[in-house]
Amino acid sequence: MSILVVGSIALDTVETPYGKVNDSPGGSALYFSTAASFFAPVNVVGVVGEDFDFNLVDFLKAKQVDLSGLKVEKGDTFRWGGRYHDNMNQRDTLFTYLNVFEKFKPEIPENYRSSKFVFLANIHPELQLEVLKSINSPTLTILDTMNFWISGSRAALEKVIERVDVMILNDEEIRELTGIQNINIASRAILKMGPKVLVVKKGEHGAVLITKDDFFSAPAYPVEKVVDPTGAGDSFAGGFVGYLACCTKLNDTDFRKAVAYGSTVASFSVESFSFDMLKRITREDIDKRLENFRKITQF
Amino acid sequence: MSILVVGSIALDTVETPYGKVNDSPGGSALYFSTAASFFAPVNVVGVVGEDFDFNLVDFLKAKQVDLSGLKVEKGDTFRWGGRYHDNMNQRDTLFTYLNVFEKFKPEIPENYRSSKFVFLANIHPELQLEVLKSINSPTLTILDTMNFWISGSRAALEKVIERVDVMILNDEEIRELTGIQNINIASRAILKMGPKVLVVKKGEHGAVLITKDDFFSAPAYPVEKVVDPTGAGDSFAGGFVGYLACCTKLNDTDFRKAVAYGSTVASFSVESFSFDMLKRITREDIDKRLENFRKITQF
Repeated sequence: MSILVVGSIALDTVETPYGKVNDSPGGSALYFSTAASFFAPVNVVGVVGEDFDFNLVDFLKAKQVDLSGLKVEKGDTFRWGGRYHDNMNQRDTLFTYLNVFEKFKPEIPENYRSSKFVFLANIHPELQLEVLKSINSPTLTILDTMNFWISGSRAALEKVIERVDVMILNDEEIRELTGIQNINIASRAILKMGPKVLVVKKGEHGAVLITKDDFFSAPAYPVEKVVDPTGAGDSFAGGFVGYLACCTKLNDTDFRKAVAYGSTVASFSVESFSFDMLKRITREDIDKRLENFRKITQF
Repeated sequence: MSILVVGSIALDTVETPYGKVNDSPGGSALYFSTAASFFAPVNVVGVVGEDFDFNLVDFLKAKQVDLSGLKVEKGDTFRWGGRYHDNMNQRDTLFTYLNVFEKFKPEIPENYRSSKFVFLANIHPELQLEVLKSINSPTLTILDTMNFWISGSRAALEKVIERVDVMILNDEEIRELTGIQNINIASRAILKMGPKVLVVKKGEHGAVLITKDDFFSAPAYPVEKVVDPTGAGDSFAGGFVGYLACCTKLNDTDFRKAVAYGSTVASFSVESFSFDMLKRITREDIDKRLENFRKITQF
């Protein structure tokens, strides 16, 4: 079933111990849709500037990604620059130019409104709410957010949280959102706020899935060469939602496997700058790594 | 088969957000032997002062732990005081009085020398080497250490590492020992130094097992109320070595299950101050939690 993603499209300038790229395609919507496209058709809503070179994302056309919901506005594309520390767990933001993204108002094309899986990438919660209202009858809605909205737009964010089926957070965000240090207790507090499913991303330490009746904990797939962690979270979300969009039911077993797929796709994503690795691999590569992932977690 | 542990016996004064205890029994040898005693007989070598109240560890007698290798020296028992931060991942050491532990020279009683599993808890590597030499023909030797010896007694430590079968480290220690940031690459460097098996403890993020042919990654068992993390690492080692001492072969599958047992015992240990929880539970409780642990990691 088709997936809708609403989020940022960016040109990233990234420096890591492995090198540097300038103005490489990135942003939550692109990382998500690249990852999800291994599983199901993806409809993208976002905004780019007149300077955006669509050739950069040409590979998405062959991958069932519909970019017709990308608006081209007068001005420059959102640009982000960052430098990762040696341990790859910390980064300094060198610059953020929102450019055309600053006034982004998502408009959902008519033919996108029947999308069954809706991923609300990290944008202003009021915009996320607008998106939710314009979808006919989604099967599953999935929410991402960040500290900036948790502290700055809490009331609006809580309204979105109330309405979505699944929430994806990292460990820092869940602590900030609930004020609870223990992730397991904090998770249950989130489930009381609305979502039926919560995924806590812990970066190199894996991910945890919590539903009313289930608890699942997965390590991260062991990657020997993390070249660039940018987009890992959105790649995870793409693999996670992508797999779910192929499921006929959506039970706890499906959600567990979706977490494993999310981790697996993210593990490929971080092995290169931008989408270089995700462009190179096939669904078969993902399935092969998923089986290896299963092997390394069994006892 | 019987296990020998050589390490510290301490009286800990610990403050966490859940309360405070004064002069509670602790130290690597006691945490280890309490944990290991659920699985096999344990012979303890260590030193205490004249002030040590053996009634404090009376419960160990009923648990196949032989304390006859504990030397009582003139002076006070090793004392440590610490305070944990709210997130439980950081702590401040308030005081360390080595007392009789300062001049500790392990003497292995004759009847301990046929012990088949030898756990070298965190003491000076030269002492660890002496212990190794005095054991007749161990089946498996397991080494723990800490940053202090990695930076301060590296040459001696490398000699021990060369001789042991298994090394247990935390993520910080493995980075310091190898100078390699990536845990997976660093692990292989350790295997080249001597050990056939490496376990990397990652605290609340679980543990990783690396052998020549195997890689296993386990999350931590989700504990809702971490009352006191003191001794978690040694409790892990106790469950790990304890389970191995019951195995007829020692293959990769056994080591995987040993890691799961280690994590499970550690998860009980941190639910109370000192040994309060480990004193209360049975092997059956451990096995029950192990099965639950298996359930939460499968997909």
